Amino acid sequence: MNEEGELLPQPETADIDLVKVLHALGDPTRMHLFRVYASGEQYDCSSERLGLDHLHKSTVSHHMRILREAGIASTRAVGRHRYVRLRRADLDARFPGLVESLLNSPEP
Amino acid sequence: MNEEGELLPQPETADIDLVKVLHALGDPTRMHLFRVYASGEQYDCSSERLGLDHLHKSTVSHHMRILREAGIASTRAVGRHRYVRLRRADLDARFPGLVESLLNSPEP
Repeated sequence: MNEEGELLPQPETADIDLVKVLHALGDPTRMHLFRVYASGEQYDCSSERLGLDHLHKSTVSHHMRILREAGIASTRAVGRHRYVRLRRADLDARFPGLVESLLNSPEP
Repeated sequence: MNEEGELLPQPETADIDLVKVLHALGDPTRMHLFRVYASGEQYDCSSERLGLDHLHKSTVSHHMRILREAGIASTRAVGRHRYVRLRRADLDARFPGLVESLLNSPEP
Protein backbone atom coordinates (compact mmCIF):
# COMPACT_ATOMS: atom_id res chain seq x y z
CA MET A 1 0.00 0.00 0.00
CA ASN A 2 1.14 3.50 -0.79
CA GLU A 3 1.71 5.34 2.46
CA GLU A 4 3.30 8.44 0.99
CA GLY A 5 1.60 11.78 0.69
CA GLU A 6 -1.04 13.43 2.81
CA LEU A 7 -4.14 11.80 4.26
CA LEU A 8 -7.13 14.01 3.51
CA PRO A 9 -9.40 14.92 6.45
CA GLN A 10 -11.62 12.10 7.69
CA PRO A 11 -13.53 11.32 10.89
CA GLU A 12 -11.95 9.29 13.64
CA THR A 13 -13.30 5.75 13.86
CA ALA A 14 -15.26 6.52 17.03
CA ASP A 15 -16.90 9.48 15.30
CA ILE A 16 -18.20 7.56 12.28
CA ASP A 17 -21.96 8.04 12.37
CA LEU A 18 -24.30 5.28 11.22
CA VAL A 19 -26.91 7.59 9.71
CA LYS A 20 -24.23 9.46 7.75
CA VAL A 21 -22.81 6.16 6.50
CA LEU A 22 -26.26 5.02 5.35
CA HIS A 23 -26.97 8.39 3.77
CA ALA A 24 -23.66 8.20 1.90
CA LEU A 25 -24.41 4.69 0.64
CA GLY A 26 -28.03 5.48 -0.20
CA ASP A 27 -27.03 6.59 -3.69
CA PRO A 28 -26.39 4.28 -6.65
CA THR A 29 -23.09 5.87 -7.70
CA ARG A 30 -21.69 5.82 -4.19
CA MET A 31 -22.86 2.24 -3.63
CA HIS A 32 -21.01 1.36 -6.84
CA LEU A 33 -17.84 3.05 -5.57
CA PHE A 34 -18.23 1.27 -2.22
CA ARG A 35 -18.30 -2.09 -4.00
CA VAL A 36 -15.31 -1.14 -6.16
CA TYR A 37 -13.32 0.00 -3.14
CA ALA A 38 -14.22 -3.20 -1.32
CA SER A 39 -12.87 -5.29 -4.18
CA GLY A 40 -9.32 -3.99 -4.01
CA GLU A 41 -6.68 -2.52 -1.81
CA GLN A 42 -6.69 1.03 -3.08
CA TYR A 43 -7.63 2.99 -6.14
CA ASP A 44 -6.28 5.95 -7.98
CA CYS A 45 -9.45 7.98 -8.43
CA SER A 46 -8.44 8.84 -11.98
CA SER A 47 -8.55 5.16 -12.78
CA GLU A 48 -10.93 3.94 -15.42
CA ARG A 49 -11.34 0.91 -13.22
CA LEU A 50 -13.87 2.87 -11.21
CA GLY A 51 -16.34 2.18 -14.01
CA LEU A 52 -17.77 5.70 -13.93
CA ASP A 53 -16.58 6.96 -17.29
CA HIS A 54 -20.06 8.26 -18.02
CA LEU A 55 -19.83 10.80 -15.19
CA HIS A 56 -17.92 14.07 -15.15
CA LYS A 57 -14.75 13.93 -13.11
CA SER A 58 -16.05 16.62 -10.74
CA THR A 59 -19.16 14.53 -10.10
CA VAL A 60 -17.05 11.51 -9.23
CA SER A 61 -14.89 13.66 -6.95
CA HIS A 62 -18.03 14.93 -5.22
CA HIS A 63 -19.22 11.38 -4.50
CA MET A 64 -15.77 10.34 -3.31
CA ARG A 65 -15.66 13.28 -0.94
CA ILE A 66 -18.99 12.28 0.61
CA LEU A 67 -17.70 8.74 1.15
CA ARG A 68 -14.54 10.11 2.78
CA GLU A 69 -16.38 12.59 5.01
CA ALA A 70 -18.77 9.85 6.15
CA GLY A 71 -15.79 7.74 7.22
CA ILE A 72 -16.26 5.06 4.56
CA ALA A 73 -13.09 5.68 2.56
CA SER A 74 -9.62 7.08 3.15
CA THR A 75 -7.96 9.27 0.55
CA ARG A 76 -4.23 9.85 0.34
CA ALA A 77 -2.97 12.68 -1.86
CA VAL A 78 0.39 12.14 -3.56
CA GLY A 79 1.10 15.08 -5.82
CA ARG A 80 -1.86 15.30 -8.15
CA HIS A 81 -2.82 11.70 -7.56
CA ARG A 82 -5.47 10.50 -5.12
CA TYR A 83 -5.34 7.01 -3.68
CA VAL A 84 -8.53 5.78 -2.10
CA ARG A 85 -9.28 2.71 -0.03
CA LEU A 86 -12.22 1.41 1.96
CA ARG A 87 -11.88 1.83 5.75
CA ARG A 88 -12.92 -1.77 6.17
CA ALA A 89 -11.27 -2.37 9.56
CA ASP A 90 -12.63 0.89 10.99
CA LEU A 91 -16.15 0.17 9.72
CA ASP A 92 -16.04 -3.41 11.00
CA ALA A 93 -14.93 -2.16 14.42
CA ARG A 94 -17.65 0.45 14.58
CA PHE A 95 -20.53 -1.48 12.96
CA PRO A 96 -19.83 -5.22 13.21
CA GLY A 97 -21.31 -7.16 10.30
CA LEU A 98 -22.56 -4.14 8.37
CA VAL A 99 -20.04 -4.10 5.53
CA GLU A 100 -20.28 -7.86 5.09
CA SER A 101 -24.07 -7.77 4.90
CA LEU A 102 -23.97 -4.92 2.39
CA LEU A 103 -21.45 -6.70 0.17
CA ASN A 104 -23.50 -9.91 0.32
CA SER A 105 -26.72 -8.12 -0.61
CA PRO A 106 -28.03 -8.44 -4.14
CA GLU A 107 -27.25 -5.63 -6.52
CA PRO A 108 -30.22 -4.07 -8.31
CA MET B 1 -51.26 -8.82 15.36
CA ASN B 2 -54.07 -6.87 13.80
CA GLU B 3 -54.76 -8.27 10.34
CA GLU B 4 -57.90 -6.27 9.62
CA GLY B 5 -58.07 -3.36 7.25
CA GLU B 6 -56.18 -2.61 4.09
CA LEU B 7 -52.45 -3.05 3.53
CA LEU B 8 -51.07 0.13 1.98
CA PRO B 9 -48.97 -0.28 -1.19
CA GLN B 10 -45.49 -1.67 -0.61
CA PRO B 11 -42.83 -3.36 -2.75
CA GLU B 12 -42.68 -7.12 -3.02
CA THR B 13 -39.80 -8.64 -1.07
CA ALA B 14 -37.82 -9.41 -4.23
CA ASP B 15 -38.16 -5.79 -5.33
CA ILE B 16 -36.78 -4.23 -2.15
CA ASP B 17 -33.75 -2.25 -3.30
CA LEU B 18 -30.66 -1.94 -1.10
CA VAL B 19 -29.83 1.63 -2.12
CA LYS B 20 -33.41 2.75 -1.44
CA VAL B 21 -33.32 1.05 1.96
CA LEU B 22 -30.06 2.80 2.85
CA HIS B 23 -31.37 6.12 1.56
CA ALA B 24 -34.49 5.70 3.69
CA LEU B 25 -32.43 4.91 6.79
CA GLY B 26 -29.88 7.65 6.11
CA ASP B 27 -31.96 10.14 8.05
CA PRO B 28 -32.02 10.52 11.85
CA THR B 29 -35.82 10.58 12.19
CA ARG B 30 -36.29 7.52 10.01
CA MET B 31 -33.48 5.66 11.79
CA HIS B 32 -35.30 6.45 15.04
CA LEU B 33 -38.57 5.06 13.63
CA PHE B 34 -36.71 1.98 12.36
CA ARG B 35 -35.43 1.29 15.89
CA VAL B 36 -38.88 1.89 17.38
CA TYR B 37 -40.51 -0.45 14.87
CA ALA B 38 -37.86 -3.06 15.56
CA SER B 39 -38.61 -2.95 19.27
CA GLY B 40 -42.24 -4.02 18.99
CA GLU B 41 -44.73 -5.92 16.96
CA GLN B 42 -46.65 -3.03 15.46
CA TYR B 43 -47.40 0.59 16.14
CA ASP B 44 -50.32 2.87 15.73
CA CYS B 45 -48.65 5.83 14.06
CA SER B 46 -50.65 8.24 16.19
CA SER B 47 -49.01 6.74 19.23
CA GLU B 48 -46.91 8.93 21.44
CA ARG B 49 -44.67 5.92 21.83
CA LEU B 50 -43.01 6.88 18.56
CA GLY B 51 -41.13 9.53 20.51
CA LEU B 52 -41.54 12.15 17.82
CA ASP B 53 -43.85 14.58 19.60
CA HIS B 54 -41.60 17.44 18.54
CA LEU B 55 -42.43 16.87 14.85
CA HIS B 56 -45.61 17.81 13.01
CA LYS B 57 -47.88 14.88 12.29
CA SER B 58 -47.55 15.41 8.53
CA THR B 59 -43.75 15.25 8.86
CA VAL B 60 -43.97 11.95 10.71
CA SER B 61 -46.37 10.62 8.07
CA HIS B 62 -43.92 11.65 5.35
CA HIS B 63 -41.08 9.73 6.98
CA MET B 64 -43.31 6.70 7.55
CA ARG B 65 -44.32 6.72 3.89
CA ILE B 66 -40.67 6.69 2.79
CA LEU B 67 -40.02 3.69 5.06
CA ARG B 68 -43.05 1.89 3.62
CA GLU B 69 -42.16 2.66 -0.01
CA ALA B 70 -38.60 1.47 0.55
CA GLY B 71 -39.94 -1.86 1.81
CA ILE B 72 -38.82 -1.37 5.41
CA ALA B 73 -42.24 -1.17 7.05
CA SER B 74 -45.76 -2.40 6.38
CA THR B 75 -48.74 -0.18 7.11
CA ARG B 76 -52.25 -1.47 7.63
CA ALA B 77 -55.12 1.02 7.52
CA VAL B 78 -58.06 0.28 9.77
CA GLY B 79 -60.54 3.11 9.55
CA ARG B 80 -58.57 6.22 10.45
CA HIS B 81 -55.93 4.23 12.26
CA ARG B 82 -52.61 3.15 10.81
CA TYR B 83 -50.77 0.14 12.16
CA VAL B 84 -47.12 -0.12 11.22
CA ARG B 85 -44.63 -2.90 11.66
CA LEU B 86 -41.08 -3.61 10.53
CA ARG B 87 -40.82 -6.07 7.63
CA ARG B 88 -38.14 -7.92 9.55
CA ALA B 89 -38.57 -11.32 7.87
CA ASP B 90 -38.65 -9.79 4.39
CA LEU B 91 -35.57 -7.67 5.06
CA ASP B 92 -33.71 -10.63 6.58
CA ALA B 93 -34.54 -12.75 3.55
CA ARG B 94 -33.42 -10.08 1.13
CA PHE B 95 -30.37 -8.73 2.98
CA PRO B 96 -29.14 -11.34 5.47
CA GLY B 97 -27.54 -9.78 8.52
CA LEU B 98 -28.30 -6.18 7.62
CA VAL B 99 -31.06 -5.44 10.13
CA GLU B 100 -29.16 -7.17 12.91
CA SER B 101 -25.98 -5.19 12.22
CA LEU B 102 -27.94 -1.92 12.11
CA LEU B 103 -29.70 -2.64 15.40
CA ASN B 104 -26.41 -3.59 17.04
CA SER B 105 -24.68 -0.43 15.83
CA PRO B 106 -24.11 2.39 18.28
CA GLU B 107 -26.60 5.21 18.25
CA PRO B 108 -25.13 8.70 17.88
